Amino acid sequence: MLKFVNDYCEGAHQEILNNLQKTNLEKITGYGLDVYSGSARNKIRAACGKPDAEVYFLVGGTQTNETVISSVLKQYQGVLAADTGHISTHEAGAIEHGGHKVLTLEQKNGKISAKSIWEYEDKFQSDLNNEHEVAPGMVYISQPTEYGTLYSLAELKEIRRACDEIGLVLYIDGARLGYALSCDENDASLKDIADIADVFTIGGTKCGAMLGEAVVFTKPGLVPHFYTITKIHGAMLAKGWIIGLSFDTLFTDDLYIKICRNANETAAKIREALFTNGYDIYIDSPTNQIFPVVTPEKAAELSENVEYGFMETLDDGRQVIRFCTSWATTMEDVDKLIEIL
Amino acid sequence: MLKFVNDYCEGAHQEILNNLQKTNLEKITGYGLDVYSGSARNKIRAACGKPDAEVYFLVGGTQTNETVISSVLKQYQGVLAADTGHISTHEAGAIEHGGHKVLTLEQKNGKISAKSIWEYEDKFQSDLNNEHEVAPGMVYISQPTEYGTLYSLAELKEIRRACDEIGLVLYIDGARLGYALSCDENDASLKDIADIADVFTIGGTKCGAMLGEAVVFTKPGLVPHFYTITKIHGAMLAKGWIIGLSFDTLFTDDLYIKICRNANETAAKIREALFTNGYDIYIDSPTNQIFPVVTPEKAAELSENVEYGFMETLDDGRQVIRFCTSWATTMEDVDKLIEIL
Amino acid sequence: MLKFVNDYCEGAHQEILNNLQKTNLEKITGYGLDVYSGSARNKIRAACGKPDAEVYFLVGGTQTNETVISSVLKQYQGVLAADTGHISTHEAGAIEHGGHKVLTLEQKNGKISAKSIWEYEDKFQSDLNNEHEVAPGMVYISQPTEYGTLYSLAELKEIRRACDEIGLVLYIDGARLGYALSCDENDASLKDIADIADVFTIGGTKCGAMLGEAVVFTKPGLVPHFYTITKIHGAMLAKGWIIGLSFDTLFTDDLYIKICRNANETAAKIREALFTNGYDIYIDSPTNQIFPVVTPEKAAELSENVEYGFMETLDDGRQVIRFCTSWATTMEDVDKLIEIL
Amino acid sequence: MLKFVNDYCEGAHQEILNNLQKTNLEKITGYGLDVYSGSARNKIRAACGKPDAEVYFLVGGTQTNETVISSVLKQYQGVLAADTGHISTHEAGAIEHGGHKVLTLEQKNGKISAKSIWEYEDKFQSDLNNEHEVAPGMVYISQPTEYGTLYSLAELKEIRRACDEIGLVLYIDGARLGYALSCDENDASLKDIADIADVFTIGGTKCGAMLGEAVVFTKPGLVPHFYTITKIHGAMLAKGWIIGLSFDTLFTDDLYIKICRNANETAAKIREALFTNGYDIYIDSPTNQIFPVVTPEKAAELSENVEYGFMETLDDGRQVIRFCTSWATTMEDVDKLIEIL
Repeated sequence: MLKFVNDYCEGAHQEILNNLQKTNLEKITGYGLDVYSGSARNKIRAACGKPDAEVYFLVGGTQTNETVISSVLKQYQGVLAADTGHISTHEAGAIEHGGHKVLTLEQKNGKISAKSIWEYEDKFQSDLNNEHEVAPGMVYISQPTEYGTLYSLAELKEIRRACDEIGLVLYIDGARLGYALSCDENDASLKDIADIADVFTIGGTKCGAMLGEAVVFTKPGLVPHFYTITKIHGAMLAKGWIIGLSFDTLFTDDLYIKICRNANETAAKIREALFTNGYDIYIDSPTNQIFPVVTPEKAAELSENVEYGFMETLDDGRQVIRFCTSWATTMEDVDKLIEIL
Repeated sequence: MLKFVNDYCEGAHQEILNNLQKTNLEKITGYGLDVYSGSARNKIRAACGKPDAEVYFLVGGTQTNETVISSVLKQYQGVLAADTGHISTHEAGAIEHGGHKVLTLEQKNGKISAKSIWEYEDKFQSDLNNEHEVAPGMVYISQPTEYGTLYSLAELKEIRRACDEIGLVLYIDGARLGYALSCDENDASLKDIADIADVFTIGGTKCGAMLGEAVVFTKPGLVPHFYTITKIHGAMLAKGWIIGLSFDTLFTDDLYIKICRNANETAAKIREALFTNGYDIYIDSPTNQIFPVVTPEKAAELSENVEYGFMETLDDGRQVIRFCTSWATTMEDVDKLIEIL
Repeated sequence: MLKFVNDYCEGAHQEILNNLQKTNLEKITGYGLDVYSGSARNKIRAACGKPDAEVYFLVGGTQTNETVISSVLKQYQGVLAADTGHISTHEAGAIEHGGHKVLTLEQKNGKISAKSIWEYEDKFQSDLNNEHEVAPGMVYISQPTEYGTLYSLAELKEIRRACDEIGLVLYIDGARLGYALSCDENDASLKDIADIADVFTIGGTKCGAMLGEAVVFTKPGLVPHFYTITKIHGAMLAKGWIIGLSFDTLFTDDLYIKICRNANETAAKIREALFTNGYDIYIDSPTNQIFPVVTPEKAAELSENVEYGFMETLDDGRQVIRFCTSWATTMEDVDKLIEIL
Repeated sequence: MLKFVNDYCEGAHQEILNNLQKTNLEKITGYGLDVYSGSARNKIRAACGKPDAEVYFLVGGTQTNETVISSVLKQYQGVLAADTGHISTHEAGAIEHGGHKVLTLEQKNGKISAKSIWEYEDKFQSDLNNEHEVAPGMVYISQPTEYGTLYSLAELKEIRRACDEIGLVLYIDGARLGYALSCDENDASLKDIADIADVFTIGGTKCGAMLGEAVVFTKPGLVPHFYTITKIHGAMLAKGWIIGLSFDTLFTDDLYIKICRNANETAAKIREALFTNGYDIYIDSPTNQIFPVVTPEKAAELSENVEYGFMETLDDGRQVIRFCTSWATTMEDVDKLIEIL
């Protein structure tokens, strides 16, 4: 059975496994206070062009989103996000469990715009009773989005401007950031992201690390005692160096970008084959997720040989499915998939 | 300045004030364990035809909604509600602060339907990964709705059936229940409400009480130790008898219905005058809230003499405003308003 | 049956009832934005000598404590309090439900000392792993305490100094503040309290108001949007003017102090009678609570004629009970009680 | 520098690393739904003698404690624990952040007794106002304790009996369970633990796993949808198989017990050397933690060559320090330590 179901079904890049093996019986300080985490933090700061950035290593995506959002927002604030945003749909209510409302904005191709942020703000401000409503306090976007699409640098700058003028914190969820940064169509570099976001993440779980996400506060001091806060929210790992060593390895010699490029290249080949074979595509996206639209019969037929993701059933009865590649997807598997398609 | 801005800008019905005066220096047991609260509970049970119902007196509307919802739902569940529902919009995120997501359904005239509940459920069930999403656990409706409209008995029964088949708790927010029960167009009696809801409220704050809401669990045992839970959530009053005595008075000789009828009658007269004078009405509703659509100029002109509520600006630039009457509105004020209109 | 069970079993001072009656059918703006609340705020600011103080009116004691503590503390902080403090024992876990640990200090006569705060801080700072512990962020004391005792001005100043040097917010719970301020043995005036506390409350529920507590932030800006936060926590009243009018009345012509003095005077007479009759007193306190120690037989005998509070059973089997007077206690009742004693 | 500072400063047992390497590029289903986790669950069920037990794999200790406690307790309940319990002291307030008070009991050698549970319960029940207090709902104990001591089977059975009679859930935190089970002085087997606890954990982080804890609900159905709840609380790992594979390996051929025995044996040798050299021991315990009492000078001297844990300063100025061994401690290191001592 071929598997294109998601991008976190392999372990870690071999270099990371090697390093874990090498350091396995060293006695390493816990909770991310070790030398490997320290080294990783410095490499990330350098890559971001932010020598003063605060960098933390957290356990996973949902933990990270919940912890960052809850630690930044005030009690009376909520977070603006696309209605297809990961925090809106697939985190089992973790954000609300943390006490905050997700204020959803209509998305287009998985993205929101500065305009939609302004519309929300204007409506909120025009309500004289808005002290009885949830005030927007933060904008959450993901790069790439849950639909594999990318914000252009110009779009990001516009969103930043809206945040500045309104007074919102901008948080960029980079759970798949490697697949954005290594994409030919992308024009927002890691340094751009670090310039634009108040806080953002560099995904490890889906991008070659054993596990974990790096959280980067681009201006120090936004959340005092974030370290302790990660513990309260379940996002801290006792053996923090497992994540630190993962990132230290990934941010050595550009490994992060190099290995992520593979996902985009394999996805591109699948996308091309879909076009060639006349498949409809739900949302065209340049990174490692592809969304063909197929009849239920075709979907059933495919599922005999390929494991893929199911997104939704359209009004015409056809189904949107997802093929997802990763840093570890082989061209051999891609060729087999194309044969099936 | 005339005031038709809301239905909680007067104190308490005179009978209640008299009773508060009469009992003022009695030494009364606190926290709702007094004889007046006991008597009120019995009268409410009798009026509902539910001798075993559990009845509690809570401080106010938002406190009540938050406490009931949080006490009934499991951690992994959310509450289905109209996107115009009070809990969706005007409780400053109290439901989310309590840990639960409000799962919004599209409304029509402020109401949701059994069909829309089923659609949500079907979509939820069709998602194979729904263990990573918020599960619906409760349906919240308000009677009358935030737009003054009423669910018919047939509609309520259909919603009940959906709740039974899916396994959802049905909660009816009756913050303005008196204005439903005293409305000629209403066909769902208090006994019907008590038969249909698992838990519902009988509004006091907006319906002649000094303050407070009665919460009725129609089947005992749904939430053990609800009493303590109200304290944790800020919904308990030390001098609980103030609310108890209010409800004891309101549920003596049908006072609740009698005084609420006034709001509907005064509203009807305003509505008629609006029709006669060619005003557009945003949503036609038979209870104590009226929603004319006016130009900004007209809105400004009116605001010189009348205080009213602002709802929203339509795409054509016109504004939806709200006139709200209460148990205490005088025909004299209504006549003055009509003159202005 | 005589009742000396607590100080919130009567309604409101007659002046307040009169004012509620007088304004009953005025149409008053909700949520504490009315003129009576505004006037009360100004009178409280003047009485405190703090023209810039922020003053809010909240529903009750537990709501107030939970809302203030939760709004002031950061996620990683807890609140230091006497192990007999109201928040430690009798709020059903509301503070923890709000997310914060109560860090208990040993009390003496219901009081904590600057020394005990420093000891906690020193121990916390000496722990190299204290980022994995709850950091103290606030000191909570009550004046008078739950045992009716008073902090002297000198003690309060010492606690303030500790808070300044450590960096802690000082919160004084004045649920019974009127009984402190009107006590002859008290040397800390309202202005002193306002100078010393960052935030404190002036109790209404137990001191003659219909209901409600005034929260005074002595330096503006400590908690932005506290207004909305009170709503989220269940501490806001729709008809806020009921509380505002209560305080407006109480802070006119020193009524608050005048009526509270009665509680101390009646308590003093009971205390004297207890001494005369050879009763042991558990904790000697000068305000409106008295704690005799009696045998179980005596307790049973008393309970035939008097309702009183039970505190605890001592190791020798004797019981600590509580007689509590209020602004409304009559000398007639006191004489009857003395006869029984 | 020798390191005896804790038992989670090494990576994973070599077998686990080998298995992670072997399966690294397999495409494995996420979130613990994989075959390795399934196999591990079955092996754990068999080892516990509980074929129906529900077994989950969570990220770490604090996450696990917070998730289990929060999912089992009702809103009005708290958890009884030793005042030295991990949840009382070293989880940064995570339990309270989850909404629940830790009700502390005095400990002796790190342990609580059935008697102390009964004393708490009796006092709680004797308070007529206990609806305004936190009700005990669960007992938390750790085996071995934070001081390395062990509950005997008889003690555990007595605690179980108290829980049954009072109606409390019994939760045993086995973060270091391997060090109990492999200890010669221990008489409570894994099957005993599974018979006695309603829910318990089998520690991985400190006992040879790469990371993670196994949670065992001994009677199915105690917490419906615990799976989703782990996600909400930050305790779920996307690549759940890392934990599953760890436990699958550890529960093959008794590896878990075999490797943990090493910690006890190395600790025994250190303990013997301490006795021989006349050191005082703070609490005598038979597992992998040893607590010598030393002068500050001695402590400083030791710290030049050994990294150890600091516990507390005694009244006489001496310090309690901790040496901690693990599954990976070598006799070579132990010999070096003994030489220094």
